[in-house]
Amino acid sequence: MSEKNIQASHVQKSFNAQKFMSHIGAQLTKVEEGYCEITLPFDENLTQQNGFFHAGIISTLADNAAGYASYSMMDDSSSILTIELKINLLSPGIGDKLLAKGSVVKKGKNIVVARSDIFIIKDGVEKLCAISQSTLMELRK
Amino acid sequence: MSEKNIQASHVQKSFNAQKFMSHIGAQLTKVEEGYCEITLPFDENLTQQNGFFHAGIISTLADNAAGYASYSMMDDSSSILTIELKINLLSPGIGDKLLAKGSVVKKGKNIVVARSDIFIIKDGVEKLCAISQSTLMELRK
Amino acid sequence: MSEKNIQASHVQKSFNAQKFMSHIGAQLTKVEEGYCEITLPFDENLTQQNGFFHAGIISTLADNAAGYASYSMMDDSSSILTIELKINLLSPGIGDKLLAKGSVVKKGKNIVVARSDIFIIKDGVEKLCAISQSTLMELRK
Amino acid sequence: MSEKNIQASHVQKSFNAQKFMSHIGAQLTKVEEGYCEITLPFDENLTQQNGFFHAGIISTLADNAAGYASYSMMDDSSSILTIELKINLLSPGIGDKLLAKGSVVKKGKNIVVARSDIFIIKDGVEKLCAISQSTLMELRK
Repeated sequence: MSEKNIQASHVQKSFNAQKFMSHIGAQLTKVEEGYCEITLPFDENLTQQNGFFHAGIISTLADNAAGYASYSMMDDSSSILTIELKINLLSPGIGDKLLAKGSVVKKGKNIVVARSDIFIIKDGVEKLCAISQSTLMELRK
Repeated sequence: MSEKNIQASHVQKSFNAQKFMSHIGAQLTKVEEGYCEITLPFDENLTQQNGFFHAGIISTLADNAAGYASYSMMDDSSSILTIELKINLLSPGIGDKLLAKGSVVKKGKNIVVARSDIFIIKDGVEKLCAISQSTLMELRK
Repeated sequence: MSEKNIQASHVQKSFNAQKFMSHIGAQLTKVEEGYCEITLPFDENLTQQNGFFHAGIISTLADNAAGYASYSMMDDSSSILTIELKINLLSPGIGDKLLAKGSVVKKGKNIVVARSDIFIIKDGVEKLCAISQSTLMELRK
Repeated sequence: MSEKNIQASHVQKSFNAQKFMSHIGAQLTKVEEGYCEITLPFDENLTQQNGFFHAGIISTLADNAAGYASYSMMDDSSSILTIELKINLLSPGIGDKLLAKGSVVKKGKNIVVARSDIFIIKDGVEKLCAISQSTLMELRK
Protein backbone atom coordinates (compact mmCIF):
# COMPACT_ATOMS: atom_id res chain seq x y z
CA MET A 1 0.00 0.00 0.00
CA SER A 2 1.08 3.56 -0.63
CA GLU A 3 1.36 5.76 2.47
CA LYS A 4 -1.91 7.44 1.51
CA ASN A 5 -3.64 4.08 1.26
CA ILE A 6 -2.31 2.93 4.64
CA GLN A 7 -3.66 6.10 6.24
CA ALA A 8 -7.11 5.42 4.84
CA SER A 9 -7.17 1.69 5.51
CA HIS A 10 -9.20 -0.19 8.12
CA VAL A 11 -5.87 -1.46 9.43
CA GLN A 12 -4.69 2.07 10.22
CA LYS A 13 -8.11 2.96 11.63
CA SER A 14 -7.99 0.04 14.06
CA PHE A 15 -4.38 0.81 14.97
CA ASN A 16 -5.35 4.43 15.73
CA ALA A 17 -8.16 3.21 17.98
CA GLN A 18 -5.65 1.38 20.22
CA LYS A 19 -4.86 4.04 22.81
CA PHE A 20 -1.94 1.94 24.06
CA MET A 21 -0.19 2.41 20.70
CA SER A 22 -0.24 6.20 20.76
CA HIS A 23 0.49 6.16 24.50
CA ILE A 24 3.83 4.40 23.94
CA GLY A 25 4.56 6.16 20.64
CA ALA A 26 4.25 3.17 18.28
CA GLN A 27 3.59 3.74 14.58
CA LEU A 28 2.31 1.58 11.77
CA THR A 29 5.07 2.11 9.20
CA LYS A 30 4.19 -0.44 6.52
CA VAL A 31 1.14 -2.46 5.52
CA GLU A 32 0.95 -4.92 2.63
CA GLU A 33 -1.35 -7.86 1.93
CA GLY A 34 -0.50 -10.24 4.79
CA TYR A 35 2.42 -8.15 6.06
CA CYS A 36 2.87 -5.29 8.50
CA GLU A 37 5.60 -3.27 10.20
CA ILE A 38 5.39 -1.36 13.48
CA THR A 39 8.08 0.97 14.77
CA LEU A 40 8.62 2.17 18.34
CA PRO A 41 11.27 4.68 19.43
CA PHE A 42 13.02 4.09 22.75
CA ASP A 43 11.45 5.66 25.83
CA GLU A 44 12.72 5.27 29.39
CA ASN A 45 9.14 4.67 30.55
CA LEU A 46 9.08 1.38 28.64
CA THR A 47 12.08 -0.25 30.32
CA GLN A 48 12.79 -3.19 32.58
CA GLN A 49 15.24 -3.26 35.50
CA ASN A 50 18.38 -2.85 33.34
CA GLY A 51 17.02 0.06 31.31
CA PHE A 52 16.29 -2.03 28.17
CA PHE A 53 12.93 -2.33 26.36
CA HIS A 54 10.62 -4.42 28.57
CA ALA A 55 9.79 -7.92 27.27
CA GLY A 56 6.12 -6.95 27.59
CA ILE A 57 6.64 -4.12 25.12
CA ILE A 58 8.44 -6.44 22.70
CA SER A 59 5.55 -8.92 23.05
CA THR A 60 3.07 -6.11 22.43
CA LEU A 61 4.72 -5.26 19.11
CA ALA A 62 4.98 -8.96 18.15
CA ASP A 63 1.28 -9.39 18.81
CA ASN A 64 0.21 -6.26 16.97
CA ALA A 65 2.45 -6.86 13.94
CA ALA A 66 0.95 -10.35 13.60
CA GLY A 67 -2.53 -8.96 14.21
CA TYR A 68 -2.42 -6.19 11.64
CA ALA A 69 -0.69 -8.40 9.06
CA SER A 70 -3.70 -10.69 9.49
CA TYR A 71 -6.23 -7.87 9.52
CA SER A 72 -4.83 -6.58 6.20
CA MET A 73 -6.25 -9.76 4.61
CA MET A 74 -9.74 -9.18 6.01
CA ASP A 75 -12.68 -7.01 5.19
CA ASP A 76 -13.31 -4.03 7.47
CA SER A 77 -16.58 -5.64 8.52
CA SER A 78 -14.54 -8.33 10.29
CA SER A 79 -12.70 -7.88 13.53
CA ILE A 80 -9.60 -9.71 14.68
CA LEU A 81 -8.74 -11.44 17.93
CA THR A 82 -5.48 -12.92 19.20
CA ILE A 83 -6.10 -16.45 20.50
CA GLU A 84 -2.54 -17.08 21.63
CA LEU A 85 1.05 -15.89 21.19
CA LYS A 86 4.43 -17.53 21.76
CA ILE A 87 7.56 -15.41 21.78
CA ASN A 88 11.28 -16.15 22.16
CA LEU A 89 13.47 -13.30 23.36
CA LEU A 90 16.83 -13.58 21.61
CA SER A 91 18.78 -10.44 22.47
CA PRO A 92 18.30 -7.63 24.99
CA GLY A 93 16.28 -4.67 23.70
CA ILE A 94 19.12 -2.13 23.89
CA GLY A 95 18.86 0.50 21.18
CA ASP A 96 17.16 3.48 19.59
CA LYS A 97 14.01 1.79 18.35
CA LEU A 98 12.17 -1.47 17.88
CA LEU A 99 10.93 -2.63 14.47
CA ALA A 100 8.41 -5.47 14.35
CA LYS A 101 7.70 -7.27 11.07
CA GLY A 102 4.60 -9.48 11.05
CA SER A 103 3.75 -11.98 8.29
CA VAL A 104 0.76 -14.25 7.76
CA VAL A 105 1.83 -17.87 7.30
CA LYS A 106 -1.65 -19.33 6.76
CA LYS A 107 -5.05 -17.70 6.50
CA GLY A 108 -7.82 -20.22 6.97
CA LYS A 109 -11.56 -19.60 7.00
CA ASN A 110 -11.54 -18.36 10.59
CA ILE A 111 -8.07 -19.07 11.95
CA VAL A 112 -4.90 -17.20 10.97
CA VAL A 113 -1.36 -18.24 11.88
CA ALA A 114 1.35 -15.59 11.74
CA ARG A 115 4.99 -15.08 12.62
CA SER A 116 6.68 -11.87 13.73
CA ASP A 117 10.37 -10.96 13.77
CA ILE A 118 11.25 -8.08 16.08
CA PHE A 119 14.46 -6.15 15.52
CA ILE A 120 16.28 -3.71 17.75
CA ILE A 121 17.95 -0.89 15.85
CA LYS A 122 21.01 0.82 17.32
CA ASP A 123 22.99 3.42 15.41
CA GLY A 124 21.27 2.26 12.23
CA VAL A 125 22.18 -1.42 12.69
CA GLU A 126 19.28 -3.91 12.83
CA LYS A 127 19.66 -6.89 15.16
CA LEU A 128 17.11 -9.68 15.62
CA CYS A 129 15.73 -9.25 19.13
CA ALA A 130 12.76 -11.65 19.33
CA ILE A 131 10.65 -14.01 17.21
CA SER A 132 7.05 -15.00 17.71
CA GLN A 133 4.45 -17.40 16.36
CA SER A 134 0.78 -16.78 17.04
CA THR A 135 -2.79 -17.76 16.28
CA LEU A 136 -5.58 -15.30 15.56
CA MET A 137 -9.26 -15.50 14.80
CA GLU A 138 -11.44 -13.61 12.38
CA LEU A 139 -14.78 -12.53 13.80
CA ARG A 140 -17.31 -11.76 11.10
CA LYS A 141 -20.25 -9.48 11.76
CA MET B 1 6.46 -12.90 53.07
CA SER B 2 4.97 -10.20 55.26
CA GLU B 3 4.34 -6.89 53.54
CA LYS B 4 7.40 -5.45 55.28
CA ASN B 5 9.52 -8.31 53.98
CA ILE B 6 8.27 -7.88 50.43
CA GLN B 7 9.20 -4.19 50.55
CA ALA B 8 12.74 -5.05 51.60
CA SER B 9 13.21 -7.98 49.23
CA HIS B 10 15.39 -8.17 46.11
CA VAL B 11 12.17 -9.05 44.26
CA GLN B 12 10.58 -5.71 45.16
CA LYS B 13 13.82 -3.90 44.44
CA SER B 14 13.98 -5.34 40.92
CA PHE B 15 10.27 -4.63 40.37
CA ASN B 16 10.80 -1.00 41.42
CA ALA B 17 13.68 -0.71 38.96
CA GLN B 18 11.33 -1.54 36.05
CA LYS B 19 10.15 1.90 34.98
CA PHE B 20 7.47 0.32 32.81
CA MET B 21 5.77 -1.02 35.94
CA SER B 22 5.38 2.33 37.68
CA HIS B 23 4.56 3.96 34.33
CA ILE B 24 1.47 1.78 33.91
CA GLY B 25 0.62 1.69 37.62
CA ALA B 26 1.34 -2.01 38.32
CA GLN B 27 2.05 -3.16 41.87
CA LEU B 28 3.65 -6.23 43.38
CA THR B 29 0.92 -7.27 45.82
CA LYS B 30 2.14 -10.66 47.04
CA VAL B 31 5.43 -12.56 47.05
CA GLU B 32 5.98 -16.03 48.46
CA GLU B 33 8.61 -18.69 47.76
CA GLY B 34 7.95 -19.53 44.10
CA TYR B 35 4.80 -17.43 43.87
CA CYS B 36 3.95 -13.84 43.04
CA GLU B 37 0.96 -11.58 42.40
CA ILE B 38 0.87 -8.36 40.41
CA THR B 39 -2.12 -6.00 40.29
CA LEU B 40 -2.88 -3.35 37.68
CA PRO B 41 -5.84 -0.92 37.82
CA PHE B 42 -7.62 -0.10 34.55
CA ASP B 43 -6.30 2.88 32.61
CA GLU B 44 -7.62 4.06 29.24
CA ASN B 45 -4.04 4.49 28.04
CA LEU B 46 -3.55 0.72 28.18
CA THR B 47 -6.38 -0.27 25.85
CA GLN B 48 -6.82 -1.87 22.43
CA GLN B 49 -9.33 -0.86 19.76
CA ASN B 50 -12.43 -1.84 21.79
CA GLY B 51 -11.38 -0.09 24.99
CA PHE B 52 -10.30 -3.31 26.81
CA PHE B 53 -6.89 -4.02 28.36
CA HIS B 54 -4.42 -4.57 25.49
CA ALA B 55 -3.14 -8.15 25.02
CA GLY B 56 0.38 -6.74 25.29
CA ILE B 57 -0.39 -5.46 28.79
CA ILE B 58 -1.85 -8.83 29.79
CA SER B 59 1.30 -10.52 28.41
CA THR B 60 3.45 -8.06 30.34
CA LEU B 61 1.80 -9.06 33.63
CA ALA B 62 1.99 -12.78 32.74
CA ASP B 63 5.71 -12.43 32.05
CA ASN B 64 6.47 -10.42 35.18
CA ALA B 65 4.40 -12.61 37.52
CA ALA B 66 6.30 -15.66 36.23
CA GLY B 67 9.58 -13.76 36.44
CA TYR B 68 9.21 -12.56 40.00
CA ALA B 69 7.82 -15.91 41.20
CA SER B 70 11.05 -17.36 39.83
CA TYR B 71 13.25 -14.60 41.20
CA SER B 72 11.81 -15.17 44.69
CA MET B 73 13.63 -18.53 44.64
CA MET B 74 16.98 -16.98 43.77
CA ASP B 75 19.68 -15.13 45.58
CA ASP B 76 19.90 -11.39 44.99
CA SER B 77 23.31 -11.93 43.41
CA SER B 78 21.55 -13.68 40.52
CA SER B 79 19.57 -11.99 37.84
CA ILE B 80 16.66 -13.40 35.87
CA LEU B 81 15.92 -13.50 32.17
CA THR B 82 12.81 -14.58 30.24
CA ILE B 83 13.78 -16.99 27.46
CA GLU B 84 10.28 -17.41 26.08
CA LEU B 85 6.61 -16.99 26.92
CA LYS B 86 3.42 -18.54 25.54
CA ILE B 87 0.07 -17.03 26.44
CA ASN B 88 -3.55 -17.92 25.67
CA LEU B 89 -6.09 -15.12 25.85
CA LEU B 90 -9.34 -16.56 27.18
CA SER B 91 -11.67 -13.62 27.84
CA PRO B 92 -11.57 -9.93 26.93
CA GLY B 93 -9.89 -7.71 29.52
CA ILE B 94 -12.99 -5.72 30.45
CA GLY B 95 -12.95 -4.65 34.09
CA ASP B 96 -11.55 -2.58 36.93
CA LYS B 97 -8.21 -4.27 37.32
CA LEU B 98 -5.98 -7.16 36.27
CA LEU B 99 -4.53 -9.62 38.77
CA ALA B 100 -1.69 -11.88 37.63
CA LYS B 101 -0.69 -14.91 39.70
CA GLY B 102 2.64 -16.52 38.79
CA SER B 103 3.84 -19.91 40.08
CA VAL B 104 7.07 -21.79 39.56
CA VAL B 105 6.44 -25.31 38.25
CA LYS B 106 10.07 -26.46 38.13
CA LYS B 107 13.27 -24.75 39.22
CA GLY B 108 16.30 -26.43 37.70
CA LYS B 109 19.94 -25.44 38.07
CA ASN B 110 19.69 -22.67 35.48
CA ILE B 111 16.28 -23.05 33.87
CA VAL B 112 12.96 -22.25 35.51
CA VAL B 113 9.53 -23.12 34.12
CA ALA B 114 6.54 -21.17 35.41
CA ARG B 115 2.84 -20.73 34.77
CA SER B 116 0.76 -17.59 35.24
CA ASP B 117 -3.00 -17.19 35.53
CA ILE B 118 -4.27 -13.69 34.81
CA PHE B 119 -7.67 -12.62 36.11
CA ILE B 120 -9.82 -9.64 35.22
CA ILE B 121 -11.74 -8.24 38.17
CA LYS B 122 -15.02 -6.42 37.56
CA ASP B 123 -17.23 -5.24 40.41
CA GLY B 124 -15.31 -7.56 42.75
CA VAL B 125 -15.79 -10.66 40.58
CA GLU B 126 -12.63 -12.47 39.40
CA LYS B 127 -12.72 -14.04 35.93
CA LEU B 128 -9.88 -15.96 34.30
CA CYS B 129 -8.66 -13.79 31.44
CA ALA B 130 -5.45 -15.47 30.22
CA ILE B 131 -3.03 -18.28 31.05
CA SER B 132 0.65 -18.51 30.24
CA GLN B 133 3.54 -20.96 30.38
CA SER B 134 7.09 -19.68 30.19
CA THR B 135 10.78 -20.49 30.48
CA LEU B 136 13.28 -18.35 32.36
CA MET B 137 16.98 -18.45 33.04
CA GLU B 138 19.01 -17.68 36.13
CA LEU B 139 22.16 -15.69 35.47
CA ARG B 140 24.67 -15.99 38.29
CA LYS B 141 27.28 -13.32 38.84
CA MET C 1 -17.30 -41.98 34.10
CA SER C 2 -17.35 -45.61 35.16
CA GLU C 3 -15.05 -47.93 33.23
CA LYS C 4 -18.06 -49.27 31.40
CA ASN C 5 -19.12 -45.79 30.40
CA ILE C 6 -15.65 -44.91 29.15
CA GLN C 7 -15.64 -47.99 26.95
CA ALA C 8 -18.93 -46.99 25.40
CA SER C 9 -18.14 -43.31 25.02
CA HIS C 10 -17.41 -41.38 21.83
CA VAL C 11 -14.10 -40.44 23.46
CA GLN C 12 -13.02 -44.08 23.66
CA LYS C 13 -14.33 -44.72 20.16
CA SER C 14 -12.19 -41.92 18.72
CA PHE C 15 -9.18 -43.04 20.77
CA ASN C 16 -9.57 -46.57 19.41
CA ALA C 17 -9.67 -45.21 15.86
CA GLN C 18 -6.18 -43.68 16.30
CA LYS C 19 -3.96 -46.50 15.06
CA PHE C 20 -0.92 -44.69 16.47
CA MET C 21 -2.29 -45.20 19.99
CA SER C 22 -2.60 -48.98 19.78
CA HIS C 23 0.66 -49.14 17.82
CA ILE C 24 2.62 -47.63 20.74
CA GLY C 25 0.51 -49.33 23.41
CA ALA C 26 -1.19 -46.23 24.89
CA GLN C 27 -4.43 -46.61 26.84
CA LEU C 28 -7.19 -44.24 27.84
CA THR C 29 -7.31 -44.91 31.59
CA LYS C 30 -9.68 -42.21 32.84
CA VAL C 31 -12.27 -39.89 31.34
CA GLU C 32 -14.35 -37.34 33.21
CA GLU C 33 -16.15 -34.19 32.09
CA GLY C 34 -13.24 -31.98 30.90
CA TYR C 35 -10.55 -34.35 32.13
CA CYS C 36 -8.67 -37.33 30.73
CA GLU C 37 -5.75 -39.65 31.54
CA ILE C 38 -3.63 -41.64 29.11
CA THR C 39 -1.07 -44.25 30.15
CA LEU C 40 1.83 -45.61 28.13
CA PRO C 41 4.20 -48.37 29.27
CA PHE C 42 7.88 -48.06 28.40
CA ASP C 43 8.98 -49.59 25.10
CA GLU C 44 12.50 -49.44 23.66
CA ASN C 45 11.04 -48.58 20.26
CA LEU C 46 9.87 -45.23 21.61
CA THR C 47 13.24 -43.92 22.78
CA GLN C 48 15.64 -41.11 21.89
CA GLN C 49 19.43 -41.37 21.77
CA ASN C 50 19.87 -41.99 25.53
CA GLY C 51 17.22 -44.68 25.79
CA PHE C 52 14.57 -42.43 27.40
CA PHE C 53 11.04 -41.80 26.13
CA HIS C 54 11.32 -39.60 23.03
CA ALA C 55 10.10 -36.00 23.40
CA GLY C 56 7.82 -36.66 20.44
CA ILE C 57 6.09 -39.43 22.36
CA ILE C 58 5.69 -37.19 25.40
CA SER C 59 4.23 -34.49 23.12
CA THR C 60 1.89 -37.05 21.58
CA LEU C 61 0.45 -37.90 25.00
CA ALA C 62 0.22 -34.24 25.98
CA ASP C 63 -1.70 -33.51 22.80
CA ASN C 64 -4.06 -36.46 23.12
CA ALA C 65 -4.76 -35.95 26.83
CA ALA C 66 -5.73 -32.33 26.07
CA GLY C 67 -7.69 -33.44 23.03
CA TYR C 68 -9.76 -36.11 24.74
CA ALA C 69 -10.35 -33.96 27.83
CA SER C 70 -11.81 -31.44 25.39
CA TYR C 71 -13.73 -34.03 23.38
CA SER C 72 -15.37 -35.31 26.58
CA MET C 73 -17.23 -31.98 26.71
CA MET C 74 -18.56 -32.30 23.18
CA ASP C 75 -21.29 -34.17 21.46
CA ASP C 76 -20.27 -37.16 19.37
CA SER C 77 -21.54 -35.36 16.29
CA SER C 78 -18.65 -32.91 16.72
CA SER C 79 -15.05 -33.63 15.89
CA ILE C 80 -11.97 -32.11 17.50
CA LEU C 81 -8.85 -30.58 16.02
CA THR C 82 -5.62 -29.42 17.66
CA ILE C 83 -4.76 -25.91 16.46
CA GLU C 84 -1.51 -25.63 18.37
CA LEU C 85 0.45 -27.09 21.29
CA LYS C 86 3.24 -25.77 23.47
CA ILE C 87 5.16 -28.14 25.71
CA ASN C 88 7.97 -27.74 28.24
CA LEU C 89 10.09 -30.79 28.95
CA LEU C 90 11.04 -30.73 32.64
CA SER C 91 12.72 -34.07 33.40
CA PRO C 92 14.03 -36.91 31.25
CA GLY C 93 11.47 -39.64 30.51
CA ILE C 94 13.29 -42.41 32.39
CA GLY C 95 10.88 -44.91 33.91
CA ASP C 96 8.33 -47.68 33.57
CA LYS C 97 5.46 -45.68 32.13
CA LEU C 98 4.15 -42.26 31.21
CA LEU C 99 0.92 -40.88 32.61
CA ALA C 100 -0.63 -37.84 30.93
CA LYS C 101 -3.38 -35.87 32.65
CA GLY C 102 -5.27 -33.40 30.47
CA SER C 103 -7.67 -30.73 31.77
CA VAL C 104 -9.84 -28.21 29.99
CA VAL C 105 -9.18 -24.67 31.22
CA LYS C 106 -11.77 -22.89 29.06
CA LYS C 107 -14.35 -24.22 26.65
CA GLY C 108 -15.64 -21.50 24.37
CA LYS C 109 -18.14 -21.80 21.56
CA ASN C 110 -15.58 -23.19 19.11
CA ILE C 111 -12.21 -22.82 20.81
CA VAL C 112 -11.00 -24.91 23.75
CA VAL C 113 -7.88 -24.21 25.81
CA ALA C 114 -6.41 -27.08 27.82
CA ARG C 115 -3.37 -27.91 29.91
CA SER C 116 -1.69 -31.31 30.30
CA ASP C 117 0.70 -32.52 32.98
CA ILE C 118 2.77 -35.54 31.98
CA PHE C 119 4.32 -37.72 34.68
CA ILE C 120 6.99 -40.38 34.44
CA ILE C 121 6.44 -43.27 36.84
CA LYS C 122 9.43 -45.27 38.07
CA ASP C 123 9.09 -47.98 40.71
CA GLY C 124 5.69 -46.56 41.62
CA VAL C 125 6.94 -42.98 42.12
CA GLU C 126 5.33 -40.25 39.97
CA LYS C 127 7.55 -37.39 38.80
CA LEU C 128 6.43 -34.42 36.71
CA CYS C 129 8.09 -34.86 33.31
CA ALA C 130 6.48 -32.24 31.07
CA ILE C 131 3.70 -29.63 31.01
CA SER C 132 1.77 -28.36 28.03
CA GLN C 133 -0.75 -25.70 27.09
CA SER C 134 -2.73 -26.03 23.90
CA THR C 135 -5.58 -24.72 21.77
CA LEU C 136 -8.19 -26.93 20.11
CA MET C 137 -11.19 -26.37 17.89
CA GLU C 138 -14.59 -27.99 17.81
CA LEU C 139 -15.84 -28.83 14.34
CA ARG C 140 -19.59 -29.28 14.24
CA LYS C 141 -21.22 -31.30 11.53
CA MET D 1 27.47 -31.70 3.92
CA SER D 2 27.89 -34.33 1.24
CA GLU D 3 25.95 -37.54 1.78
CA LYS D 4 29.16 -39.26 2.86
CA ASN D 5 29.81 -36.55 5.41
CA ILE D 6 26.28 -36.76 6.81
CA GLN D 7 26.67 -40.49 7.29
CA ALA D 8 29.87 -39.98 9.23
CA SER D 9 28.68 -37.02 11.28
CA HIS D 10 27.82 -36.91 14.99
CA VAL D 11 24.39 -35.70 13.87
CA GLN D 12 23.73 -38.92 11.95
CA LYS D 13 25.19 -40.98 14.79
CA SER D 14 22.79 -39.44 17.30
CA PHE D 15 19.87 -39.80 14.89
CA ASN D 16 20.70 -43.48 14.43
CA ALA D 17 20.75 -43.93 18.21
CA GLN D 18 17.11 -42.81 18.42
CA LYS D 19 15.23 -46.09 18.16
CA PHE D 20 11.97 -44.20 17.67
CA MET D 21 13.29 -42.84 14.36
CA SER D 22 14.04 -46.23 12.78
CA HIS D 23 10.87 -47.64 14.34
CA ILE D 24 8.68 -45.18 12.43
CA GLY D 25 10.89 -45.18 9.33
CA ALA D 26 12.18 -41.58 9.53
CA GLN D 27 15.38 -40.64 7.73
CA LEU D 28 17.84 -37.77 8.02
CA THR D 29 17.91 -36.58 4.42
CA LYS D 30 19.93 -33.36 4.63
CA VAL D 31 22.27 -31.74 7.14
CA GLU D 32 23.98 -28.40 6.74
CA GLU D 33 25.43 -25.95 9.26
CA GLY D 34 22.35 -24.92 11.26
CA TYR D 35 19.90 -26.72 8.97
CA CYS D 36 18.43 -30.20 8.75
CA GLU D 37 15.77 -32.18 6.87
CA ILE D 38 13.97 -35.31 8.02
CA THR D 39 11.69 -37.39 5.80
CA LEU D 40 9.02 -39.86 6.87
CA PRO D 41 6.95 -42.04 4.49
CA PHE D 42 3.29 -42.59 5.31
CA ASP D 43 2.45 -45.59 7.47
CA GLU D 44 -1.01 -46.53 8.71
CA ASN D 45 0.43 -47.20 12.16
CA LEU D 46 1.19 -43.50 12.56
CA THR D 47 -2.33 -42.19 12.05
CA GLN D 48 -5.02 -40.44 14.07
CA GLN D 49 -8.76 -41.14 13.97
CA ASN D 50 -9.24 -39.96 10.35
CA GLY D 51 -6.31 -41.89 8.93
CA PHE D 52 -3.98 -38.86 8.63
CA PHE D 53 -0.50 -38.51 10.15
CA HIS D 54 -0.95 -38.07 13.92
CA ALA D 55 -0.14 -34.60 15.32
CA GLY D 56 2.28 -36.31 17.69
CA ILE D 57 4.26 -37.64 14.73
CA ILE D 58 4.31 -34.20 13.12
CA SER D 59 5.52 -32.74 16.44
CA THR D 60 8.19 -35.43 16.66
CA LEU D 61 9.61 -34.43 13.27
CA ALA D 62 9.39 -30.72 14.14
CA ASP D 63 11.31 -31.35 17.35
CA ASN D 64 13.98 -33.52 15.75
CA ALA D 65 14.51 -31.26 12.73
CA ALA D 66 15.07 -28.33 15.12
CA GLY D 67 17.24 -30.50 17.35
CA TYR D 68 19.55 -31.81 14.65
CA ALA D 69 19.80 -28.42 12.94
CA SER D 70 21.05 -27.17 16.32
CA TYR D 71 23.30 -30.16 16.92
CA SER D 72 24.98 -29.60 13.56
CA MET D 73 26.44 -26.40 15.05
CA MET D 74 27.88 -28.19 18.06
CA ASP D 75 30.86 -30.33 18.80
CA ASP D 76 30.25 -34.06 19.23
CA SER D 77 31.39 -33.73 22.85
CA SER D 78 28.21 -31.72 23.50
CA SER D 79 24.76 -33.16 23.77
CA ILE D 80 21.50 -31.44 22.97
CA LEU D 81 18.27 -31.13 24.90
CA THR D 82 14.87 -29.72 23.90
CA ILE D 83 13.65 -27.31 26.58
CA GLU D 84 10.33 -26.55 24.92
CA LEU D 85 8.48 -26.68 21.62
CA LYS D 86 5.48 -24.82 20.22
CA ILE D 87 3.79 -26.07 17.09
CA ASN D 88 0.88 -24.86 14.96
CA LEU D 89 -0.89 -27.45 12.84
CA LEU D 90 -1.94 -25.79 9.58
CA SER D 91 -3.25 -28.54 7.32
CA PRO D 92 -4.17 -32.18 7.85
CA GLY D 93 -1.31 -34.63 7.29
CA ILE D 94 -2.84 -36.38 4.28
CA GLY D 95 -0.23 -37.59 1.84
CA ASP D 96 2.65 -39.86 0.89
CA LYS D 97 5.30 -38.48 3.19
CA LEU D 98 6.24 -35.75 5.65
CA LEU D 99 9.27 -33.52 5.16
CA ALA D 100 10.50 -31.47 8.12
CA LYS D 101 12.96 -28.62 7.59
CA GLY D 102 14.61 -27.26 10.73
CA SER D 103 16.66 -24.04 10.89
CA VAL D 104 18.58 -22.42 13.70
CA VAL D 105 17.48 -18.82 14.24
CA LYS D 106 19.92 -17.97 17.06
CA LYS D 107 22.69 -19.98 18.65
CA GLY D 108 23.72 -18.50 21.97
CA LYS D 109 26.34 -19.79 24.40
CA ASN D 110 24.00 -22.44 25.84
CA ILE D 111 20.57 -21.71 24.39
CA VAL D 112 19.52 -22.30 20.79
CA VAL D 113 16.28 -21.09 19.20
CA ALA D 114 15.08 -22.83 16.06
CA ARG D 115 12.11 -22.93 13.71
CA SER D 116 10.82 -25.90 11.74
CA ASP D 117 8.50 -26.00 8.75
CA ILE D 118 6.83 -29.35 8.14
CA PHE D 119 5.46 -30.18 4.71
CA ILE D 120 3.12 -32.91 3.60
CA ILE D 121 3.92 -34.26 0.14
CA LYS D 122 1.15 -35.77 -1.96
CA ASP D 123 1.70 -36.85 -5.55
CA GLY D 124 4.90 -34.81 -5.57
CA VAL D 125 3.23 -31.59 -4.39
CA GLU D 126 4.60 -30.02 -1.18
CA LYS D 127 2.09 -28.33 1.13
CA LEU D 128 2.91 -26.58 4.41
CA CYS D 129 1.42 -28.74 7.15
CA ALA D 130 2.79 -27.31 10.41
CA ILE D 131 5.26 -24.73 11.75
CA SER D 132 7.12 -24.80 15.03
CA GLN D 133 9.34 -22.61 17.17
CA SER D 134 11.45 -24.17 19.89
CA THR D 135 14.19 -23.68 22.47
CA LEU D 136 17.07 -26.09 22.98
CA MET D 137 20.04 -26.31 25.29
CA GLU D 138 23.61 -27.38 24.70
CA LEU D 139 25.04 -29.58 27.42
CA ARG D 140 28.83 -29.61 27.42
CA LYS D 141 30.75 -32.48 28.91
